[in-house]
Amino acid sequence: MQRVAAGRDVATAPLRRAFPCPSRRAAERHPRQHLGPVHVAKAPISSPTASNGAHSAPAPAASTSSRDSASDVAASSALSANLLLICPDQKGVIAAVSQLLYGFGCNIVASDQFTDSSSSMFFQRITFDFSEIVIGPGNTAVLERAIAELANRFNMKWKIAYKNKVKRMAVLVSKQDHCLYDLLIRHRSGELRCEIPFIISNHPDLKHIADTFGVPFVHLPLDKNNKEAQEEALEKLIKEENIDVVILARYMQIFTQGFCERHWEHTINIHHSFLPAFEGARPYHRAHERGVKIIGATAHFATAELDAGPIIDQAVARITHRDNVEDMIRKGRDLERMVLARAVRWHLDDRVMVYNNKTVVFED
Amino acid sequence: MQRVAAGRDVATAPLRRAFPCPSRRAAERHPRQHLGPVHVAKAPISSPTASNGAHSAPAPAASTSSRDSASDVAASSALSANLLLICPDQKGVIAAVSQLLYGFGCNIVASDQFTDSSSSMFFQRITFDFSEIVIGPGNTAVLERAIAELANRFNMKWKIAYKNKVKRMAVLVSKQDHCLYDLLIRHRSGELRCEIPFIISNHPDLKHIADTFGVPFVHLPLDKNNKEAQEEALEKLIKEENIDVVILARYMQIFTQGFCERHWEHTINIHHSFLPAFEGARPYHRAHERGVKIIGATAHFATAELDAGPIIDQAVARITHRDNVEDMIRKGRDLERMVLARAVRWHLDDRVMVYNNKTVVFED
Amino acid sequence: MQRVAAGRDVATAPLRRAFPCPSRRAAERHPRQHLGPVHVAKAPISSPTASNGAHSAPAPAASTSSRDSASDVAASSALSANLLLICPDQKGVIAAVSQLLYGFGCNIVASDQFTDSSSSMFFQRITFDFSEIVIGPGNTAVLERAIAELANRFNMKWKIAYKNKVKRMAVLVSKQDHCLYDLLIRHRSGELRCEIPFIISNHPDLKHIADTFGVPFVHLPLDKNNKEAQEEALEKLIKEENIDVVILARYMQIFTQGFCERHWEHTINIHHSFLPAFEGARPYHRAHERGVKIIGATAHFATAELDAGPIIDQAVARITHRDNVEDMIRKGRDLERMVLARAVRWHLDDRVMVYNNKTVVFED
Amino acid sequence: MQRVAAGRDVATAPLRRAFPCPSRRAAERHPRQHLGPVHVAKAPISSPTASNGAHSAPAPAASTSSRDSASDVAASSALSANLLLICPDQKGVIAAVSQLLYGFGCNIVASDQFTDSSSSMFFQRITFDFSEIVIGPGNTAVLERAIAELANRFNMKWKIAYKNKVKRMAVLVSKQDHCLYDLLIRHRSGELRCEIPFIISNHPDLKHIADTFGVPFVHLPLDKNNKEAQEEALEKLIKEENIDVVILARYMQIFTQGFCERHWEHTINIHHSFLPAFEGARPYHRAHERGVKIIGATAHFATAELDAGPIIDQAVARITHRDNVEDMIRKGRDLERMVLARAVRWHLDDRVMVYNNKTVVFED
Repeated sequence: MQRVAAGRDVATAPLRRAFPCPSRRAAERHPRQHLGPVHVAKAPISSPTASNGAHSAPAPAASTSSRDSASDVAASSALSANLLLICPDQKGVIAAVSQLLYGFGCNIVASDQFTDSSSSMFFQRITFDFSEIVIGPGNTAVLERAIAELANRFNMKWKIAYKNKVKRMAVLVSKQDHCLYDLLIRHRSGELRCEIPFIISNHPDLKHIADTFGVPFVHLPLDKNNKEAQEEALEKLIKEENIDVVILARYMQIFTQGFCERHWEHTINIHHSFLPAFEGARPYHRAHERGVKIIGATAHFATAELDAGPIIDQAVARITHRDNVEDMIRKGRDLERMVLARAVRWHLDDRVMVYNNKTVVFED
Repeated sequence: MQRVAAGRDVATAPLRRAFPCPSRRAAERHPRQHLGPVHVAKAPISSPTASNGAHSAPAPAASTSSRDSASDVAASSALSANLLLICPDQKGVIAAVSQLLYGFGCNIVASDQFTDSSSSMFFQRITFDFSEIVIGPGNTAVLERAIAELANRFNMKWKIAYKNKVKRMAVLVSKQDHCLYDLLIRHRSGELRCEIPFIISNHPDLKHIADTFGVPFVHLPLDKNNKEAQEEALEKLIKEENIDVVILARYMQIFTQGFCERHWEHTINIHHSFLPAFEGARPYHRAHERGVKIIGATAHFATAELDAGPIIDQAVARITHRDNVEDMIRKGRDLERMVLARAVRWHLDDRVMVYNNKTVVFED
Repeated sequence: MQRVAAGRDVATAPLRRAFPCPSRRAAERHPRQHLGPVHVAKAPISSPTASNGAHSAPAPAASTSSRDSASDVAASSALSANLLLICPDQKGVIAAVSQLLYGFGCNIVASDQFTDSSSSMFFQRITFDFSEIVIGPGNTAVLERAIAELANRFNMKWKIAYKNKVKRMAVLVSKQDHCLYDLLIRHRSGELRCEIPFIISNHPDLKHIADTFGVPFVHLPLDKNNKEAQEEALEKLIKEENIDVVILARYMQIFTQGFCERHWEHTINIHHSFLPAFEGARPYHRAHERGVKIIGATAHFATAELDAGPIIDQAVARITHRDNVEDMIRKGRDLERMVLARAVRWHLDDRVMVYNNKTVVFED
Repeated sequence: MQRVAAGRDVATAPLRRAFPCPSRRAAERHPRQHLGPVHVAKAPISSPTASNGAHSAPAPAASTSSRDSASDVAASSALSANLLLICPDQKGVIAAVSQLLYGFGCNIVASDQFTDSSSSMFFQRITFDFSEIVIGPGNTAVLERAIAELANRFNMKWKIAYKNKVKRMAVLVSKQDHCLYDLLIRHRSGELRCEIPFIISNHPDLKHIADTFGVPFVHLPLDKNNKEAQEEALEKLIKEENIDVVILARYMQIFTQGFCERHWEHTINIHHSFLPAFEGARPYHRAHERGVKIIGATAHFATAELDAGPIIDQAVARITHRDNVEDMIRKGRDLERMVLARAVRWHLDDRVMVYNNKTVVFED
């Protein structure tokens, strides 16, 4: 999580942040960085030292979900939030955090923690219900201020995600449809808690699927000469539409280093091999040539180094000598959509933390 | 785990405890109830010095381990403990417990929790280091008293297991050797943190394995006429040797209801099917006859109802029409030893809690 | 597969066949027995023109496929066929069959065989290319006659399935959409080699999905009073539309015994448990109550006895105490659609043979 | 398997051979290389007594097995054999081979075949019973001559392995005991059909295990200066003891290129990663550093290029962020022994064929 971060520029808000945004310097380096899972609290933070965590006020509207089932969930969980925190391991953290929440009248619904012994870092994810918060449910800014103070004391990076603030997810595709179908069907069934404001593709082929599910389809053609312009158009869309998460559902294009550095924390790619085996192009062909007895798929954050980002989830399937490349591609499709869906679900539910190019995943 | 733990009435009740408390003092106090399951006392807790949790003092000797590797572990974890607790879900439990430990100068090394929404029960397992406990490491009785008071307040059942108090495990076998070999090899490698004071069998066949690993072998022959006497001899051994855990490593015999009721919480059986399919005898034969495409194995607590105890772990393997019963038996052996070893490991490490005939397993 | 295949007595017997023979001629000959299960004729085969195997002439048209990708496959495999056979194990069968095909100029592309030692029955599936058949590709009747004679000699039951005769598959659904979506997407991708002339449901809820994929949707409402009439309507559709395969994609209704007896060999159901555990209703609820650590799904032929038909495939997934019934239902959906798709694919590709209420599955 | 195949020199050669036993020319080049890989003879076969297939006469003695259970199996299968063949795909092969066996009065008990469409090569494994062979069971030389002629016609490489000729397997270990234990226990249980004349190690640590199982232990110490001498001693042992199979059960040493070239076809190594990920040293450490979510193990033939030989089998297990390197090592042990045992079993049962650095594995 050494790259996790980003400061903020109070004067120049809108205050959009990458996940935890700890250092002022980082903020200065990317003053326009906009892609946060988190939207800014409406109340101005008065002091630059106040919080080193990203946060957002509960969404004012009852539901911003694009679907009934999701908005039902949103309603039922309207007054709960996920608190993520990372800090050096030390005595008293758990006591302090749980005491703070208890003191505010919050109820801890779920809690997962992990201490990485090699780095002596402590990770925690707390889901709490603040419907009976003593200062009034609308007054989460006070709670956040208290958390910020505590975080300061423990050298803690943190973020808070209110469950009624449904994340906005853009899905990027190319010509293959299986991951797209899968995400849309799961979204429709309520498995994925997010809005999908649009699907983006460098090819027009899958527009009919977007139409079927009533999702706008944006065609951003790509050729040798327009790569930068296309990426800019994409980035503009992400900004204007307040996109929190970008899913590369077999998008098959490589972004510029700059794009990756700005967006990797919110960008999940599905690679069709069990990384680190068969990084790069044509993994099934190479797996066939090597004669492996298992194939796999890997969901990972799309950092600038190709297929080397933090791994969120992997799955494999047995194959035999009878499976030719086409069979592997067919069997792999099931792995890809399964693994991608799991990673997306966990990320949307604030279950994935990154540190040292590895993930801590508090599975559901 | 509805029977786990207990208030107790020192004056009147036989002290039945969730877990054995094998210190000499404890053994002297309760010579005949060493390993019994715990029944919840209905009576109110009358004395502040009475704990409603089961507990044991840290073992006085540095190591009671039978093997070097294990004793090394014992040494390194000499001053840590696992605290298990169950109570109705309510605000403030986590804060109170973590605050209490922090107040004593203990460091929470690991913590897992779970709230069962259907029963509104809260389960927690906390591993804490008390090497810097403010009252002095030898003074855990004070800590336990504090926990007992807190438990009283939250209507909590609890137990504490000190890591330097290595559990004593009896392995019961019949004629099949694969699970026995597996447990002994894992024990030797340090995977299983326990002592194995003896192996018990109704047949003499596996004595050579016990000899190889230097473990005493007790032959308790069984025939139609001596079932009760044999079980009494077994129970006597368990008591006299302060056995904490009984493993039925393909023992293939059914205990009396009384024995099960007294010992089920500490007795783990491996059944060679994916329960509840194929309960009872000859599961592989019946699986073959039914034409299933997967076979399985199940580790469970051995309650009085055959193969119906709380399931700790299960595993399965794919089979095809080519697998006859002998193949299934062969492939099943790998499942049986893997699943049994996992269940034993988790149980020895205080990761398994029982409630409503189901387990909460905080996996490692 | 004791009922598969059949001698037949053209003069007297109702012609019941292992597999549909949907050429126009065949249909005219046997207008009322299109899809019935086959009962073994006890009578000796009296005429050389009578086959004791079920068969179908290669389809005259180049392609009857509903989709391009599938029809491409159809074209490329237009002159190949699958030959399935079952007979008592005996010397010389493989030599005789392979010699016969070689003698006709056919090339064996793939061959799988299995001898069940308990019943001493021999099963074989041969895929052969007859593009260079010495008697001319259109003249398969002569080939079939030769096979019939050989089958007579070895007391063999057999059927032949020409690859350019694409099977017609009806999908029955109720309100749950995941299996339907999955089958339609796989069909569109070319994974499932069949036509889907219509989707049938007792509820109108999923019509929009059928519309999306351009498949006719037939609503056959069902209530307490019209069960028989509804089943008759269904059976009429199956006959009139020359349906070869019926898929119960979470149809959730139980057919009459008569329907099952007539159709079980072509009717695949997906049950949401690892049978034989949790047969019948609400398996996830019962699995949750029992506290299992794995859940599963089973695809099987829908015989008259509920959830007791021959199992084609099964899959399982690990769960933990954290998974409530809703989580199990969600995770189970992935199992259900995966297992059902595999079973359907294998069945469409003539890879599944039934004997003694068990299946022999020659997996791809 | 392009190098499989061989003539033989009836007059001079010791008739115990590992799988391929080379053409006369090859034999002349390496007269003392009992277990060398086979080079395809370029010259046409000139004499009916020269076969281009490797073979061995049935062992004269009833049983050479070191254990009762294995010898029982040997007795029951005394008159059966596995025939392996590879040739360019062409019409009539199956017919010709099955007709030949039938003509001799042999009964095909099992048969597996595979056509690799990319190389147009045909692979087959036939298990046949020759107890009723028309020329008398002791007269297999005649049968082999007939096979050799047929092989010549189809440009076929072949070998025959008589089941009563139990293979002799050397196990090489270093300091880790889990794979050694596992192989010995499986051998004792009858799972592995072979003799184990000795265990070889560069360290004395595991001698006690060899003693326990009554297997001679040969200590061949290894240091920087004696590598070649040690390998020569090893090779001498292999020759003198007529070793057919060499198992590297976590031997952890790299052989010279010459040794690998001579022995790779009979030498199986277990590597503790899912190859091709993490080839070479310390794979678990690198897997931990990379943050993978699955770990694996791979059994492969030990060719000269490190960890790049043909893969026989692989298996994986899920891990999480909680698993440190020690946990991965512990969990990996179960994978390693499982995968190695499977590969050894299949190899001993003549189920593994090699072609283009990949394996065709006819699984049981």
